[in-house]
Amino acid sequence: MTGFFRLIPVIEAIHIINRISQVVETESVPLTSAYGRVLAEDIQADTDIPGFDRSVKDGFAVHSADTVRASEAAPLPLTKVGRVVMGRGGSDLLIAPGECTYIPTGAVLPGGADSVVMLEYCQDLGELVLVGRQVSPGENIIRADEDYARGEGVLAAGRLLKIQDIGVLAAAGASRVAVRKRPVIGIISTGVELVPPEETPDAGEVRDVNSYICGAFVEEMGGIPRHYDIVRDDPDELTALLSSALDECDAFLITGGSSKDDRDITAGVIATLGEMFAHGLALAPGKPTIIGKIGHAPVIGIPGHPASTRVVLAVLAGPLLQSLTGCTDRREAKQKAILSRSIPSERGREEYVRVKLLGDEAVPLFGKSGLLNTLVESDGYIRILQGCEGLEAGSEVDVTLW
Amino acid sequence: MTGFFRLIPVIEAIHIINRISQVVETESVPLTSAYGRVLAEDIQADTDIPGFDRSVKDGFAVHSADTVRASEAAPLPLTKVGRVVMGRGGSDLLIAPGECTYIPTGAVLPGGADSVVMLEYCQDLGELVLVGRQVSPGENIIRADEDYARGEGVLAAGRLLKIQDIGVLAAAGASRVAVRKRPVIGIISTGVELVPPEETPDAGEVRDVNSYICGAFVEEMGGIPRHYDIVRDDPDELTALLSSALDECDAFLITGGSSKDDRDITAGVIATLGEMFAHGLALAPGKPTIIGKIGHAPVIGIPGHPASTRVVLAVLAGPLLQSLTGCTDRREAKQKAILSRSIPSERGREEYVRVKLLGDEAVPLFGKSGLLNTLVESDGYIRILQGCEGLEAGSEVDVTLW
Repeated sequence: MTGFFRLIPVIEAIHIINRISQVVETESVPLTSAYGRVLAEDIQADTDIPGFDRSVKDGFAVHSADTVRASEAAPLPLTKVGRVVMGRGGSDLLIAPGECTYIPTGAVLPGGADSVVMLEYCQDLGELVLVGRQVSPGENIIRADEDYARGEGVLAAGRLLKIQDIGVLAAAGASRVAVRKRPVIGIISTGVELVPPEETPDAGEVRDVNSYICGAFVEEMGGIPRHYDIVRDDPDELTALLSSALDECDAFLITGGSSKDDRDITAGVIATLGEMFAHGLALAPGKPTIIGKIGHAPVIGIPGHPASTRVVLAVLAGPLLQSLTGCTDRREAKQKAILSRSIPSERGREEYVRVKLLGDEAVPLFGKSGLLNTLVESDGYIRILQGCEGLEAGSEVDVTLW
Repeated sequence: MTGFFRLIPVIEAIHIINRISQVVETESVPLTSAYGRVLAEDIQADTDIPGFDRSVKDGFAVHSADTVRASEAAPLPLTKVGRVVMGRGGSDLLIAPGECTYIPTGAVLPGGADSVVMLEYCQDLGELVLVGRQVSPGENIIRADEDYARGEGVLAAGRLLKIQDIGVLAAAGASRVAVRKRPVIGIISTGVELVPPEETPDAGEVRDVNSYICGAFVEEMGGIPRHYDIVRDDPDELTALLSSALDECDAFLITGGSSKDDRDITAGVIATLGEMFAHGLALAPGKPTIIGKIGHAPVIGIPGHPASTRVVLAVLAGPLLQSLTGCTDRREAKQKAILSRSIPSERGREEYVRVKLLGDEAVPLFGKSGLLNTLVESDGYIRILQGCEGLEAGSEVDVTLW
């Protein structure tokens, strides 16, 4: 008897989100502020990296041909010449056949030499060095352009910058990089029963939980949460708030007020101010989800139960923030586990079941979606595709961690 | 011929790190700044949550006994009475046997009623409601203390606050929480060959990469990286820097200058200013790692090859930051995969092999540890325990993502 739109499959909802989201602008940041941001330009190496044939060990630079059949039992003598100065290139030092020179890790391989014998295998006798190990050409060195050649692509736009990426940007001379701005996400909770956490709820009231879950999610996804006051189920109040906040935000997450009731003001307000694309997903928990757009800003209306909120954030707000930042490779952490007991599922909707990991076992937590305790206890979720009748105990499942 | 200390097993190195690290102080932050921080106090619910018997569906509040044998084919009539006002409790509304009342999601269950029939299964005829579904006592409601009872523990000190934790803190009335301060980690690169990323390296020079990798790692672990100028392999310079920086930092990461060479100044400086606990780990890559302490501050001396840096960060600096913040449950993201080819390993050291994930397959990347390209291409690493001779192609492996 409730009048949802057609229930939209999750995959279609994600397509809608991608279609209605526009990528935010770029900004230039110093490299020390680039971790966790989304790269907005392709980066090429501005020089060869490392830029010279470089020793990767402390040892002796040699002609590899001079070490053929050298062993610890039968070391071969080479004449020690010259000295490699660390951090300097272009010395006149030339290693002739039969000669060697001490070279520290990271130094320029001298002319003539083609490899380095590790110090551990050499005995320095003063004028002579006994070499106890055969090396091949190129051994224990990195060639001038072996890591990256000048002009070679290093990282592509859209990449979510990881720890090691910051290192390669340093190597490529990108001391400042263009990244996507952090999208500003307006967060609004609706509900006449809601009070902020610092207040003690009176009879019939509960504290606003969902806007704090939304805010933390936006932070994790690299956005900036902007919290607005609680709207008390009044369409005029929500209309006024959204209208005035529109210029400040790239998108909105509105929690509560999305089921089919006289208090369900979100859909009506979105339809009046902008456009509605979905009201009702084939998703459990999270069926009464709304997708709309007001002006430039995509809006997701999120059901009020905390577990539904968390699932809809993972399923839809994640793609929203990826789209807003043009991020091509954000990755969820997944873990394989063995299902500890069977999970029945209704066909016709995609179901997200919270699970706790105990060693290699995934234990489903079947608590009501209005409960926080099972949500907090869970390590992640299992996704049961639409059309699947459930999963059997003992089957291998992918747990997405959260 | 090089004079390392005894090579210390990785597990012992972690014990040393834990022993020499002291937990940083706490600070009070508003809930909106608590995500990703380490909780420094135990949190209890200050009220029952939700605080009243609460409907979790839009529907009709009923005596469940009145619904026995109700079905869509044979619905049972109940007399509609009164009205539940959202956000208010303590109304005088009492549901007598044979009666029902409309109740929205989240509202207080009226006296007498013990369950809710979902709207979908009810037909409202005005004075009567036809109930088309049997419900059990407690169905579609959450009891007053079902989520948490007043005084019940909600989250324990040491927890790394996740998205949903912020929600439960809001519910428990923790509008401010005590968290551990972000530890300040001094980052120093040593090497006469190093130039900062904004400079173009001259012959023999390379850009400083490792201090940027260290900085991003510290950020990911919730610390504050404090970058110092490059030290050019001069013990006096490093001594002066560490002495003056000691008051500003909770720990130090020093990269480069840790192998056994006349440029290897880090160990000597640490021994002079403080205490050395390890020089050389049974770890590959990362053997020439140093662990020491100067004053209150643990110091890790990290080998200069980028892949070694990244591994030592994961293996030792992770535990360091956990110890400094008293974090009990930081979790690495791991994924099971099938090894695409065999990996030989030297017994006697713990080996970390970078891998790229291609679907369910983990492809080892055997590049030199001085190369950035294989590091950037990798999705994580496989750990081969000390004493293990290697892993065979086709075996299942745990990939720790990075």
